[in-house]
Amino acid sequence: MQKILDPKRTDWPVLLKRPTQTYDQVEKTVNYIFKDVQLNGDIAVKKYAKKYDRVVLDNLLVSQEEINEGKTNVTDTLKSAIQMAKANIHKFHMAQVTKPVKVQTMEGVSCWQEKKAIQKVGLYIPGGTAPLFSTILMLAIPAKIAGCKEIILCTPPDKYGKINPAILFTANLCGVTKIYKLGGIQAIAAMTFGTETIPKVYKIFGPGNQFVTIAKQMATKYGVAIDLPAGPSELLVVADDSAKANFVASDLLSQAEHGEDSQVILVTTSKSMLDAVALEVIRQLDDLPRKEIASKAIQNSKLIYCKNKETAIDLINDYAPEHFIICTENNNFYIENIQNAGSVFIGNFTPESAGDYASGTNHTLPTNGYAKNYSGVNLDAFLKAITFQTISKSGLLGIGNAIENMAEAEGLQAHKNAVSIRLESIKE
Amino acid sequence: MQKILDPKRTDWPVLLKRPTQTYDQVEKTVNYIFKDVQLNGDIAVKKYAKKYDRVVLDNLLVSQEEINEGKTNVTDTLKSAIQMAKANIHKFHMAQVTKPVKVQTMEGVSCWQEKKAIQKVGLYIPGGTAPLFSTILMLAIPAKIAGCKEIILCTPPDKYGKINPAILFTANLCGVTKIYKLGGIQAIAAMTFGTETIPKVYKIFGPGNQFVTIAKQMATKYGVAIDLPAGPSELLVVADDSAKANFVASDLLSQAEHGEDSQVILVTTSKSMLDAVALEVIRQLDDLPRKEIASKAIQNSKLIYCKNKETAIDLINDYAPEHFIICTENNNFYIENIQNAGSVFIGNFTPESAGDYASGTNHTLPTNGYAKNYSGVNLDAFLKAITFQTISKSGLLGIGNAIENMAEAEGLQAHKNAVSIRLESIKE
Repeated sequence: MQKILDPKRTDWPVLLKRPTQTYDQVEKTVNYIFKDVQLNGDIAVKKYAKKYDRVVLDNLLVSQEEINEGKTNVTDTLKSAIQMAKANIHKFHMAQVTKPVKVQTMEGVSCWQEKKAIQKVGLYIPGGTAPLFSTILMLAIPAKIAGCKEIILCTPPDKYGKINPAILFTANLCGVTKIYKLGGIQAIAAMTFGTETIPKVYKIFGPGNQFVTIAKQMATKYGVAIDLPAGPSELLVVADDSAKANFVASDLLSQAEHGEDSQVILVTTSKSMLDAVALEVIRQLDDLPRKEIASKAIQNSKLIYCKNKETAIDLINDYAPEHFIICTENNNFYIENIQNAGSVFIGNFTPESAGDYASGTNHTLPTNGYAKNYSGVNLDAFLKAITFQTISKSGLLGIGNAIENMAEAEGLQAHKNAVSIRLESIKE
Repeated sequence: MQKILDPKRTDWPVLLKRPTQTYDQVEKTVNYIFKDVQLNGDIAVKKYAKKYDRVVLDNLLVSQEEINEGKTNVTDTLKSAIQMAKANIHKFHMAQVTKPVKVQTMEGVSCWQEKKAIQKVGLYIPGGTAPLFSTILMLAIPAKIAGCKEIILCTPPDKYGKINPAILFTANLCGVTKIYKLGGIQAIAAMTFGTETIPKVYKIFGPGNQFVTIAKQMATKYGVAIDLPAGPSELLVVADDSAKANFVASDLLSQAEHGEDSQVILVTTSKSMLDAVALEVIRQLDDLPRKEIASKAIQNSKLIYCKNKETAIDLINDYAPEHFIICTENNNFYIENIQNAGSVFIGNFTPESAGDYASGTNHTLPTNGYAKNYSGVNLDAFLKAITFQTISKSGLLGIGNAIENMAEAEGLQAHKNAVSIRLESIKE
């Protein structure tokens, strides 16, 4: 890990730069597969499943028998853990339900805003070595609370055409009824255009590798919305002498094991904490099964000493971390002044993995600096707000002239006429 | 206008298709200008201002003297109209302020969600024949309520380097202090990268022609968020015999005058209303100054008869109109069952132009079917939600094992360790 002491502000942009990625080659592949799926539907989809996932499938839809079988292959311990997580996530996202906003802006002019569910949503869950059943909780629970009518899930099968039992159990528990054995670019393309088997959706959620990420961006060109522009996972810890170096190191490593391109940063106002964490990271790294991945990510990562908390928070807001852990004597200072972060973890006993799994907050969060302009996934991500208004005759008498004058000043006579013709009929 | 009687459901996709656009050529130009502005800043920006807006500018920033001069060139009548609109828009968007959501999901596990302003936002206001000062109200008022720290505005000057006085007056009234004389692709590129003069922003708002639309899409490739993917304006009216044909026609025309690619649709359960509106449109069209534009848009437009209200609402939800006017005997049926629309106008005395200018709702709305998956601009468009959590020792004792089990099942040992190391220290 690179140690940086008291960096100059002019050096921050370079210091805080994410590992860059170029996607031009991937984009061509994605474009090609999209066109093929648009034209050829299921045939194309199955062709790419064979090519990339090395699996030949007659039926993309997971059957009820497979779901039942999945349930029996999950241990009771894991089932209870998932159920506890579900209860917490449900509670936190239920609390985000808002009432319609209704205002009489003037006498006779009534305006309101109501949220309605996005009717058709698609959840993408990566497969592979780490079956991310936790992401199903994070996406399907708010989708259900929002009232989305059609919630489908795509996830790649293994080479025997099987889906991980924890994924089947969790999807079923959360009320996702249509699970498709399909991964990668072809899954995103199928949900974008619809095929004979797979329904078209209005919004696609979920993480994935760079192919899936580019495919989701491509989907937006065809009128489909996506949850977030995704990037590699990242974590920033701010710590002073009140923190525990071994706890901090364990948090840094928990994010580093996600992928070689993950980035973890320690910002500290204590030089001795900086050295202690550096030692602990090396010590703990040795025992990890995903040591190779984590150690590559650690090479991208930084330990930064700042001379005071005011400088530290400025630097943190400039970076806009996806995950932000605060372990300092004055946590409130950072809570009050953080402007750009996805999710914030406060105190020595609040590891980031709590939010990844079970505390109740969502783990689908803005990376790559997007915490400056995007929210993480929350209930509102499954809703859209519609405004309504109704104006009475007397209301129009009150507001009509203002509309006429403004429309005229903008040179839009027909906009004015729509009011004038009504005002005349009232005055008749 | 095309009349369609009782269309089959299988014909709806073709019937409801928007006039298509291809952007490939524009995309090349946009890409070229973006790279140039990224590399050469103000020099590039001024070069394109000269090329496209035919204006040579020493200073892009509007001076205080110009703002003062603008104020004196707006009539008192227009000033009062703008002030009334501002009060209503402010009232409706203030009502959208939400309190933090705070939940104890389990004993010792406290989670909350707080919204924070997007710190730097850029507003784009088109110039040309129709100076859209009303859009400044729609964007700057919620930006101010949200608490955005930096609110800048770009708008193209005329060939004398002047900005329309109503734009200057409105921007100043709404507290926008930095107004730049800059339009088109170069304005969007400047706000994306920042130049010597123009600050980089985190989110860009506002309408524009196809060049600006593609430029905003391009901005998202560089980490900048945008309000909405934009398309031509559109309006759908549902009317039965209780409606007034001349009012309905005036509303259809008010949207048709926006541009040749605008689309207006009447859905009706009354054949006589269909014929009456068709006649009224022709009659009113003749008197419009923007007759040429409106009549081209009317050619794209449709009068559709549906045999009952259940079929009508299904068709309307399939189309997902930007603006939706309801003038029927049973308005509540449509209010309750509309799922996909940007903004809804109810009753014979609620013209769509009320929402365009002064009633209080926002006029920046999803077009092109995006009402299925996007909200219009509202207060939340200027905010992002951040989640926070803090877990006590006893809280971690309660939730820790569940996290450990789930992390292990996902094969993420370092995620588990971050909990285990803390649990061990508590139990010591």
